[in-house]
Amino acid sequence: MVKTRAIIDEFDTYVPGKSKKEISEKYGVPENEILKLGSNENPWGPAPGVKEAILNAIPEMNRYPESNHEYLKEKIAEYAGVNKNQVIVTGDGADELLDILAKTLIDPGDEFIVHPPTYMYYSFTFKQYNAKAVYAKWNVKENKLDVQSVLDNITDKTKVIFLCTPNNPTGGLIPQEDIIKIIESTDALVVIDEAYWEFSEVNNVNLLDKYDNVFIIRTFSKVMGLAGLRIGYGLSNPELLEKISRIKPVFSLTVPSQKAVLATLADKEFIKESTKKSIAEREYLYESVNAIDNLHIYKSKSNYLLIDVRNSGFTAKELTSKLMEKGIIVRDCTSFYGLDEYYIRISVETHPKNEKFIKILKEIVGN
Amino acid sequence: MVKTRAIIDEFDTYVPGKSKKEISEKYGVPENEILKLGSNENPWGPAPGVKEAILNAIPEMNRYPESNHEYLKEKIAEYAGVNKNQVIVTGDGADELLDILAKTLIDPGDEFIVHPPTYMYYSFTFKQYNAKAVYAKWNVKENKLDVQSVLDNITDKTKVIFLCTPNNPTGGLIPQEDIIKIIESTDALVVIDEAYWEFSEVNNVNLLDKYDNVFIIRTFSKVMGLAGLRIGYGLSNPELLEKISRIKPVFSLTVPSQKAVLATLADKEFIKESTKKSIAEREYLYESVNAIDNLHIYKSKSNYLLIDVRNSGFTAKELTSKLMEKGIIVRDCTSFYGLDEYYIRISVETHPKNEKFIKILKEIVGN
Repeated sequence: MVKTRAIIDEFDTYVPGKSKKEISEKYGVPENEILKLGSNENPWGPAPGVKEAILNAIPEMNRYPESNHEYLKEKIAEYAGVNKNQVIVTGDGADELLDILAKTLIDPGDEFIVHPPTYMYYSFTFKQYNAKAVYAKWNVKENKLDVQSVLDNITDKTKVIFLCTPNNPTGGLIPQEDIIKIIESTDALVVIDEAYWEFSEVNNVNLLDKYDNVFIIRTFSKVMGLAGLRIGYGLSNPELLEKISRIKPVFSLTVPSQKAVLATLADKEFIKESTKKSIAEREYLYESVNAIDNLHIYKSKSNYLLIDVRNSGFTAKELTSKLMEKGIIVRDCTSFYGLDEYYIRISVETHPKNEKFIKILKEIVGN
Repeated sequence: MVKTRAIIDEFDTYVPGKSKKEISEKYGVPENEILKLGSNENPWGPAPGVKEAILNAIPEMNRYPESNHEYLKEKIAEYAGVNKNQVIVTGDGADELLDILAKTLIDPGDEFIVHPPTYMYYSFTFKQYNAKAVYAKWNVKENKLDVQSVLDNITDKTKVIFLCTPNNPTGGLIPQEDIIKIIESTDALVVIDEAYWEFSEVNNVNLLDKYDNVFIIRTFSKVMGLAGLRIGYGLSNPELLEKISRIKPVFSLTVPSQKAVLATLADKEFIKESTKKSIAEREYLYESVNAIDNLHIYKSKSNYLLIDVRNSGFTAKELTSKLMEKGIIVRDCTSFYGLDEYYIRISVETHPKNEKFIKILKEIVGN
């Protein structure tokens, strides 16, 4: 047998999530009645113009995608309020950004700082490059970053510091003054993950012109409603982006993805409405779960919410499984480093589906 | 400025190819009259069923793609004549396969063997992981692999040996007896790149059950007519594939790409016809260029052909540029390690376009 790298043995065997089809077959819930509150998507679907844009591109699916992304960068820059040369666009969503950041910055033994509980893909990706994860802390109870825990962990081996705001899965924001404190304490790259910024209505783009060591991560998978097309973008200083572009996959952004970006950004009303509806449903879910005595839900600035289920008599795994039997997919957060086995995360669905979820949730936890 | 890895400085600044739009604007050729003989695509477009398949998937573009690929693997296994557990499917075409192979196998300082001139992305990718390229040799004159040059370069640091058959950009095949000789001489993984195998009508799938150290690379970007959707697949032993799947990007294959795979494989006639037409046009191009006195064209088993232009009075760069002025894109092979500045590569277009290309080529080289 071919010898694989030692680090491969530190990763678990991949276990894919159940598909709607599998859930439907197992629990007898019709596929179109399954509620997906597990993946922080935009449940209202893509912008209407996406359909025609993709259809028009079908005859050119046999051709390699354009790789310079000039026109995409122009439109994204406009949307984000930056210059075109401060933008980089990726395939495979923001996950590809993480990979090329590691590839550009990490030599074996270098350190990166994360604040658990937070998005797990930072560590998943950076560990593949033999980087060492150093753990700062997100204060779950107060739903805020323990800034001192980040500052205390900076060493001369720190290459990247990940700040997730709003934080996934807790939904809390990191105030800009805290971010600045961190940026000014280090030469490491401070990566601000703003995948969900639209739902919080604040961002940190203004820091780009002041600081060289800032990289903002964005995605079209959330409010833009295009998770299935795997589009990410990064905002940073042109000099760093030029270095990254040297080793970036050349063709990873598909033809339909490129067309969908343009169709979506052209539809300001869609983005505005999706944001508004997501926020309204988030608040509906908050109020509804907050009224259930034996569940504790955290306030959120994103399109998902964290729930502490320990007083319900169920573990997260048990509750997730009970919900799945009814055709409802939520995220069991047990696998999130920094959380124990009593948290689930729910993301917004359309209103009738959220109502249905709340009804079934109440039936299960008996409130 | 944030410090990047030393290896980044060994890569050139990325220079994207000119888009049709740019060529059209620069040389005044209408965009729809530009001939693209540069990228080894299927010029007849995707299978007719792809359109409906993608159209039907538009409402679910807001959802993450399925990540288990079970159904895709089943259909690909059927097509390739292997078992489902011998298949892995990737986004970003076969290029993602190269990246995850490096990620699974390469520690800094490990060696890989390539046989220049060959596909450049092997080295582009593996160097990013601080692997050392070791050069065997493709005999261009006889258009065949110098097998001994591979065997002579195997050391205990060799982790991967790349064999490209048909070889890009020369079009020659590697006989299976030579491949076996190499496989049996090493514990390294022998990666057989069969991106273009359909045009040669032979493959090496029968080796998979005999040898553990074989990995076959395939793509939907060539005869399948889906370069714009970035779909690749690998065939190997289940144990190695399990290891790779631990660190593989989870969602990199987009929703439309998944639908297009199924629609394409369901259309056996499309695949057969595309293969047949590509071979016919390849032979037409061969005969036509072969009749031009001051050009030397190599026989090819793929959908592209290598041309030695040194007797035309032009370098490859000059001839490529002359052709581009007329709206014709061919591949200047000067950047291929192992070739000098006198080679271009052309790939098949539809017949009327190939005729037009030959006419203009003759005008330029004066034959």
